Amino acid sequence: MSNTIIFDESKKFVTKAYGASGNIFGGKTLEPIEIERYKPKVDEVLIEILYCGVCHSDIHQVNNDWNNTIYPCVPGHEIIGKVIEAGSGVSKFSVNDIVGVGCMIDSCQECKSCQDGQEQFCLGPVAQTMTYNGYFKPDGSDYNTFGGFSTHIVVKDSFVLSIPNSLKYSAAAPILCAGVTTYSPLKHWGVKRGDSVGIIGIGGLGHMGVMIARAMGAKVTAITTKEEKRSLALELGADDVLISEDEKAMKAKETSFDFLLCTIPESFDITPYISLLAPRGTIVTVGLLGPYKSPTNNMEVAKFGRSVAGSLIGGIAETQEVLDFCAEHNILPQVEMIDIKDINKAFDKIKDEEVRFRYVIDMESLKVDSEKA
Amino acid sequence: MSNTIIFDESKKFVTKAYGASGNIFGGKTLEPIEIERYKPKVDEVLIEILYCGVCHSDIHQVNNDWNNTIYPCVPGHEIIGKVIEAGSGVSKFSVNDIVGVGCMIDSCQECKSCQDGQEQFCLGPVAQTMTYNGYFKPDGSDYNTFGGFSTHIVVKDSFVLSIPNSLKYSAAAPILCAGVTTYSPLKHWGVKRGDSVGIIGIGGLGHMGVMIARAMGAKVTAITTKEEKRSLALELGADDVLISEDEKAMKAKETSFDFLLCTIPESFDITPYISLLAPRGTIVTVGLLGPYKSPTNNMEVAKFGRSVAGSLIGGIAETQEVLDFCAEHNILPQVEMIDIKDINKAFDKIKDEEVRFRYVIDMESLKVDSEKA
Repeated sequence: MSNTIIFDESKKFVTKAYGASGNIFGGKTLEPIEIERYKPKVDEVLIEILYCGVCHSDIHQVNNDWNNTIYPCVPGHEIIGKVIEAGSGVSKFSVNDIVGVGCMIDSCQECKSCQDGQEQFCLGPVAQTMTYNGYFKPDGSDYNTFGGFSTHIVVKDSFVLSIPNSLKYSAAAPILCAGVTTYSPLKHWGVKRGDSVGIIGIGGLGHMGVMIARAMGAKVTAITTKEEKRSLALELGADDVLISEDEKAMKAKETSFDFLLCTIPESFDITPYISLLAPRGTIVTVGLLGPYKSPTNNMEVAKFGRSVAGSLIGGIAETQEVLDFCAEHNILPQVEMIDIKDINKAFDKIKDEEVRFRYVIDMESLKVDSEKA
Repeated sequence: MSNTIIFDESKKFVTKAYGASGNIFGGKTLEPIEIERYKPKVDEVLIEILYCGVCHSDIHQVNNDWNNTIYPCVPGHEIIGKVIEAGSGVSKFSVNDIVGVGCMIDSCQECKSCQDGQEQFCLGPVAQTMTYNGYFKPDGSDYNTFGGFSTHIVVKDSFVLSIPNSLKYSAAAPILCAGVTTYSPLKHWGVKRGDSVGIIGIGGLGHMGVMIARAMGAKVTAITTKEEKRSLALELGADDVLISEDEKAMKAKETSFDFLLCTIPESFDITPYISLLAPRGTIVTVGLLGPYKSPTNNMEVAKFGRSVAGSLIGGIAETQEVLDFCAEHNILPQVEMIDIKDINKAFDKIKDEEVRFRYVIDMESLKVDSEKA
């Protein structure tokens, strides 16, 4: 495929993508569709997408699990690509630069959150613009952004990340969501050398959490329901493994963790994990964006002054920080490369927890597809 | 009544008290009983109790709401009294000093929590010894301490507080529980001048919270279900009042509070209050020592990086700190004095939220009773 894009008279062009149709009952499988992109404005870059990670959120959004999906839905927010055109006002990037795009492509830039570099908590009229399924007009009148399961994307330069060239590009994609989602809370809650940290759920997010917390100097315990994940967790660098279904082992670890990061992507009971926290300890849930399974017992929380917090991805500066941190500490997501035509099978395998640990789509497979078509 | 105590040959003496009998289904009403106290050991003081506050916890404990009540149960952990005898090793207090005893009378003194001055989170073998219903032998072999609804108490000097003489003694009692329970989280979570703080539930704890947060320089909103508490809250110094059953008013205050302190003493839904928090805001529940009414929605928590925490009274140094803070800022609990014989009626009125804002028992009424008896 050529780098030369032919725009039509309204400065748009059609590109191939994989998207889902659907309704309030959830989305169908992903199929090839065509979407429109447009010529980059003065502060934007046009990116040819090389790789895109597959996140559990993609499945939630396609399935309308959060009751806010706009169809067609083109997921994908772990994007690695190459700049092929830059607006005249862009100084940060040049054509051929390898860049990344994560979960957000815009925000109001004026509210306290944006000023603090926490664009993910934007308090502007339409909040931050998500990479897919997002509003993108400041008055909320236009919406439904399309994500990285496509050949190209156009993004404002201030939301584009530099990919350090020591990172293997194909494997770096998950850092843009799984990486920053685990790095941000570990950093915000001040995890430091010698802290006792537990990472709950050893999947796409959790495997990044183990590696990042270790690189921060923490003593890391991987907490999983599955005995068969023990050796995988130890290979990732965990100092210890705790099987959450082993009541005796859980009891023995009560009040022993300074910090717990919970990546379980579905409704679960948090109270047994709260008991693991030391006095003044904090547990942060990043995987579940909905209600817990049963009411939290505040006796467990209050009796040791504990905190139960939540965290959502991270800011743009933090996303750059985690990319640089991973480059510095030789941390790379463990990925399995797939072709775009296998995306529906990949969704099923993620649901069944069969992926080790993240699928990344080689977007060349979509381009080949489109050239054949 | 004379200050001279006659000890028997085993260095014990019998004193009057009010206690409840009961079983796993809960306690009966409080009635006059006799309990034993003993001659103070080298590091202990014998205190003649002058005043004792009535806390919602007293009711929970008598009713066995936490499934851990040992009967007979003599409640009372907001104690103001006069030292009438001091062990030979006590240098901090002298006979006739006016002193206070709060929720704890001992702890291991060796664990990290105790070393940090957070005795309420003691990690020793039997945890901290509560003023009533507490274990008090390090091996857990002896238990059931008796609280302040009695004429005398014996306490280790390091758990006895100095009452600043500018505080009105009869009204100071609630500072020892309600005061420190609200002061500790406001201080721990760094509430400072200009912060937007909401105090949820304007009762015994909440009315202290409003006054303390104001004295810390925060902009304070009293949050209550009851329109009739509006003027009371404003009189306490609240800058604003928010009625939690007014959905429109609640909606208008979303993302506006840096910190919320929730004193509701019963099971309730926390998610609507979480929505009031600004990005990175924290809500701390101190009133409820049990499960919330329904599962917390982590979407509300995560989407602005919020925290849902709990807190339990405060350490001994912090208890002294809040006594001194109240003296310095002319903060006094608003109390209604009662006689001990009216304690059961008082319990009912607390349950019906009719007290403004704390009952304090004039313990002279028990002494008179006992002299009559």
